Amino acid sequence: MAYCIVTYDIGEERVNRVRKVLKRYLNWVQNSVFEGEISEGKLEKCLQELKSVINADSDSVYVYCFEIREYCRKRVVGCEKENTFNLI
Amino acid sequence: MAYCIVTYDIGEERVNRVRKVLKRYLNWVQNSVFEGEISEGKLEKCLQELKSVINADSDSVYVYCFEIREYCRKRVVGCEKENTFNLI
Repeated sequence: MAYCIVTYDIGEERVNRVRKVLKRYLNWVQNSVFEGEISEGKLEKCLQELKSVINADSDSVYVYCFEIREYCRKRVVGCEKENTFNLI
Repeated sequence: MAYCIVTYDIGEERVNRVRKVLKRYLNWVQNSVFEGEISEGKLEKCLQELKSVINADSDSVYVYCFEIREYCRKRVVGCEKENTFNLI
């Protein structure tokens, strides 16, 4: 298992399909950010699905992974959007 | 020094001021994402400046920090936006 942060910059006409894929694997925590624990196998499956949805010439998805959750210290300035998103 | 990823979801009327602050400390790598090496002191200064710009009730900034850059494996799906942004 690894902890992953996924950020994206997607054309308006494709962004909902990208979110639909990511919602099945990770938690939507900020407008263009998903986070969560995921196995290597599921991450590969998720990335394959994303590749079939995005336009590789103009859309951008960054996947930051780290083996141990505690390697990363997370701080929040302003409000946490997590709850608002995962109700939708 | 730490390696930090900063993501944000900011009201339209404040987002340029937030980017102006972040550009002085980190690299703009994706529409709502900055990244880079930064000292603890400079990170504190940056966060104080952000606090004075954002609306804490509606704006959201997440700061993910790693003591060691190599703890975090980054993968890109689609295109890398880094160059486009740092020319502006």
